[in-house]
Amino acid sequence: MSKFMNVHSGFVGVTEQQLKEAHERDLAIERDEGVHFERAWLDPISGKVFCLSNGPSRESVMRIHERAGHPTGEVYELSIEVV
Amino acid sequence: MSKFMNVHSGFVGVTEQQLKEAHERDLAIERDEGVHFERAWLDPISGKVFCLSNGPSRESVMRIHERAGHPTGEVYELSIEVV
Repeated sequence: MSKFMNVHSGFVGVTEQQLKEAHERDLAIERDEGVHFERAWLDPISGKVFCLSNGPSRESVMRIHERAGHPTGEVYELSIEVV
Repeated sequence: MSKFMNVHSGFVGVTEQQLKEAHERDLAIERDEGVHFERAWLDPISGKVFCLSNGPSRESVMRIHERAGHPTGEVYELSIEVV
């Protein structure tokens, strides 16, 4: 299992409720690919969303996001983490 | 206080030890601006670094990163978070 950060653009003006609904569409199907989406953060001014997840591969994260209706090609494998 | 994500590019091939040293340069001076850098993640293949922090403003985060030797203009205010 690896950790991933994926980035979405274009979520300008999206509300907390809308982000929650989008995130819940991921959570509803994530087990199909062995992925877990831990957290999502939004800057509604720039429209950037950052999603932190665990899963077997970049492709598994991309497939869940695509099926949930918010595809992204921008998925980074976070092999190094510091605190 | 707000939460921020900032992104650095160009850290291709950087090691865990090098990221740790860079992060510690932030931690050493972060109090000057009332910022705290919680965590940093690196994808050494693409060279992307994601830094999660708390602080009073985007500018405060940018000033610490600049003084620590790794300036970035890409700082997003994460006013919305879902789990």
